[in-house]
Amino acid sequence: MLSSEKNEGTQSEEQLNLIFRALGDRTRRALLAALSHRPAMVTELAEPFAMSLPAVSRHIRVLEGAGLVRRAVDGRVHHCSLSAEPLRNVEAWLGHYRRFWEGTLDSLARHVEGDSETQP
Amino acid sequence: MLSSEKNEGTQSEEQLNLIFRALGDRTRRALLAALSHRPAMVTELAEPFAMSLPAVSRHIRVLEGAGLVRRAVDGRVHHCSLSAEPLRNVEAWLGHYRRFWEGTLDSLARHVEGDSETQP
Repeated sequence: MLSSEKNEGTQSEEQLNLIFRALGDRTRRALLAALSHRPAMVTELAEPFAMSLPAVSRHIRVLEGAGLVRRAVDGRVHHCSLSAEPLRNVEAWLGHYRRFWEGTLDSLARHVEGDSETQP
Repeated sequence: MLSSEKNEGTQSEEQLNLIFRALGDRTRRALLAALSHRPAMVTELAEPFAMSLPAVSRHIRVLEGAGLVRRAVDGRVHHCSLSAEPLRNVEAWLGHYRRFWEGTLDSLARHVEGDSETQP
């Protein structure tokens, strides 16, 4: 393996670490869900949570570190927007495992077909 | 919202926490990858890692906690197997965000089509 390939592999593993850890928190997933509807200021994002502004800001920083949120600072106002691109890595990682549950569905379908009358 | 619905929601959020946190570690992802090829004993799983048996065992316990690994104990031998089912939750969670990168691909495709001659 070339050293550059090894570095790329290590980098993408490190990025997956950051993404999965960022997603392992309910509040952070809720922040992403809010931003999937529209960009928002940190103060707006904080509103629905019984949480201080600095606490929400810390969660946003974790999401930024994983590349999932972009923050634009305009004076004292922080505008956040979703950056969904890194989730492609999760999609790619998940791809290897999809056959397991798709296989389960296939065998369930065969089981149902074998057990009952033919359905339209 | 019914209280049972709320509990279900909280439970699935808690399960997503466990799954994402379990996946946020390169060694644990490598253990899952190994188990996706075939079930294995903890001692076999530990071999490729420069890691003590108890350390690998701790990682496997985290994966078990997230429902991603099953462990069957036969005397002193621990047999592990992949349990991919909980990854469906990740798939479902990801589904909400897929449109963002699929949208990007669509606009890229339109851009390429508009810029170049029609391709077969």
